[in-house]
Amino acid sequence: MPSSNDFPSANGPRPSTPTFFNNSFLNLEPGNPTMYESYWKKMGDKCTVVIKGSELLSYMTDENNVCWFMLPELNDAIERLHRLVGNAVTDGKHVVVGTGSTQLFQAALFALSSSDDSPQPLNVVAAAPYYSEYREEVEFLQSKLYKWAGDAHVYDKDEPCIEVVTSPNNPDGTLREPVVKKAKQGKLIHDLAYYWPHYTPITHMADHDIMLFTFSKCTGHAGSRIGWAIVKDKEVARKMTRFIQMSSIGVSRESQRRAAKLMEVVCESYENVKHIKSENFFHHSKDMLTEKWVKLREVVEQSVVFSLQKYPEGYCHFTGEISEPRPAFAWLKCNNGIDDCESYLRGLSIIARGGKRFGADPKYCRVSMVGKEDQFNELLRRLSNVTGNSKNEH
Amino acid sequence: MPSSNDFPSANGPRPSTPTFFNNSFLNLEPGNPTMYESYWKKMGDKCTVVIKGSELLSYMTDENNVCWFMLPELNDAIERLHRLVGNAVTDGKHVVVGTGSTQLFQAALFALSSSDDSPQPLNVVAAAPYYSEYREEVEFLQSKLYKWAGDAHVYDKDEPCIEVVTSPNNPDGTLREPVVKKAKQGKLIHDLAYYWPHYTPITHMADHDIMLFTFSKCTGHAGSRIGWAIVKDKEVARKMTRFIQMSSIGVSRESQRRAAKLMEVVCESYENVKHIKSENFFHHSKDMLTEKWVKLREVVEQSVVFSLQKYPEGYCHFTGEISEPRPAFAWLKCNNGIDDCESYLRGLSIIARGGKRFGADPKYCRVSMVGKEDQFNELLRRLSNVTGNSKNEH
Repeated sequence: MPSSNDFPSANGPRPSTPTFFNNSFLNLEPGNPTMYESYWKKMGDKCTVVIKGSELLSYMTDENNVCWFMLPELNDAIERLHRLVGNAVTDGKHVVVGTGSTQLFQAALFALSSSDDSPQPLNVVAAAPYYSEYREEVEFLQSKLYKWAGDAHVYDKDEPCIEVVTSPNNPDGTLREPVVKKAKQGKLIHDLAYYWPHYTPITHMADHDIMLFTFSKCTGHAGSRIGWAIVKDKEVARKMTRFIQMSSIGVSRESQRRAAKLMEVVCESYENVKHIKSENFFHHSKDMLTEKWVKLREVVEQSVVFSLQKYPEGYCHFTGEISEPRPAFAWLKCNNGIDDCESYLRGLSIIARGGKRFGADPKYCRVSMVGKEDQFNELLRRLSNVTGNSKNEH
Repeated sequence: MPSSNDFPSANGPRPSTPTFFNNSFLNLEPGNPTMYESYWKKMGDKCTVVIKGSELLSYMTDENNVCWFMLPELNDAIERLHRLVGNAVTDGKHVVVGTGSTQLFQAALFALSSSDDSPQPLNVVAAAPYYSEYREEVEFLQSKLYKWAGDAHVYDKDEPCIEVVTSPNNPDGTLREPVVKKAKQGKLIHDLAYYWPHYTPITHMADHDIMLFTFSKCTGHAGSRIGWAIVKDKEVARKMTRFIQMSSIGVSRESQRRAAKLMEVVCESYENVKHIKSENFFHHSKDMLTEKWVKLREVVEQSVVFSLQKYPEGYCHFTGEISEPRPAFAWLKCNNGIDDCESYLRGLSIIARGGKRFGADPKYCRVSMVGKEDQFNELLRRLSNVTGNSKNEH
């Protein structure tokens, strides 16, 4: 039985752990960023955090900060990282830490909708294909504050809305702008989880009202459940903080401590002129992803069944290079009259997430590119071995 | 301006950090368990956790567990701790870890209400005086699944409900049973945050459908945001897990690792026969709290303004002693025609949480007993110094 979401299904028996040996299932359905583990292994002891039993007991951390449960060292590290990369403006803004950007997305919905005067729930939209989990995160508690209103492209109600702009987009890696017309457009949440130089050229400093980032996709530490929002308006930051207080009375200090440490290691390696650039985190990760994309495109170009879109090149202010994006997911399309890419891949013992979940055509499937190398090589092998796959076949 | 809840107010300017020197404010409003810090300092290196940069990256932890994001070592440590203390049955039940018991409370509301067939929101009740945050946690998202219905003592609707049973109770330390009559009573959530031997005699092994515990009140590590639920029904455990997935895609692995470590240290010290009992965590903490309660009662007994209830003694199966409870909060009552205890204490530069917030008489106030020793001594000094306070005055 396929999982109905990123993770083990809550609604029925789960499939046994997929492995990729002997044609058993290869699970590329969640975007589990385990490819970065090898990098952190190489970094060794300088990334290690040590926490004594008597540390970090208190609920309160920084009473002078709107986000009173954030460690000052994490706030500093986040601002330092954005200054290094140049991907987002933090000056004069407020940082709010969350238990992953999932919690912050909901905190933003709460902040924007609870200050809305309308007695009706505020409509939440995102342009299809949109991140598959937004819908359920909006709907699962049946809040009277906000409700899911689907694809932003076709939103035509004369009511204000919240538009979630995901750029680069999950699942398809494209760069995005808001699509709802200004007149109706109420408020924007920019989900910039993948706006990092390993995934895409950093073409500009993002400067929006609410920008969401996650440690999971930045350095690969998904288990830490650390996300952060950069928020222009103090009152919105305060309400988001309030949401996180009501939801979980703050965010793990151990994870905050570790996230700060790892961000500092990344920044220090770039600031150390003796360091070889290609061995620094973003450059190393960019090279790994570039190699994967080259290999995947080679396989897909030989195929009559599959295709992948091309991305426009861009100049990256961080690396000083012109390159194509290297998204965290492949948005694979089935051709040749195959209408259901997810089922087709399942026939190849590959688990991926079908287009329908993203409000898109089931001809598409999202396949993780951030798993471990042996998983990825097995993906290539299985895609290449499709009967009738090769354009060169007779 | 008083904080409107446990923590810095989201609705206006916050008061400057209260300190307790020179009659500036002494903040005993939140139950911030910093008194335990001194114990953990004494324990030294054996409580230290060390986490490498390459560890704990994955979203998934244990695919064989209903709660797939829980570290197996934490599951083991939780069961071991309950076996040691004898305060809750874990055999044949499911452990669900949460970002504090705050998240688990909401996960339980979701699990119980989303399986309810009624089109109406399920009523949530608790017997007054009830924990001040339940109401807002139920209400803040305006869910159509559940709604706050107030004091369980006066609940008389012919509709099913969820009753939260907090035992020992926050704020007043009493032992509790459900109060809603069986016929109407739908479902129960037992919040057993304070059912540990430093706070109260462990008179029996609790064995309820959903039992909530929190690391914050057990060992004092509130900053870790670790709570756990012990759940009888697998489907309920699955739905609670699903809630935590939707809300934050799991729980910090760093905090889980550390909670497991500290629980193991507690268990090992009891299992080591060479260890002096009074130096083990629960015994040491019990002695600290006993001393505080003796001192507080001495001051209050001399007072004509304040009074405290007496608690019945009980036999503790864990310590083998008969004793009174030593609650984490004093539920202080003002007499002598003083109607508003919170304001009265504020006149003494003591910040505490007024009875109204707990659905109770404003003559009462909740005062934290789990802060640091110097804070507590200052509380005693201020309470003793009240003009006309002493029964022996002429």
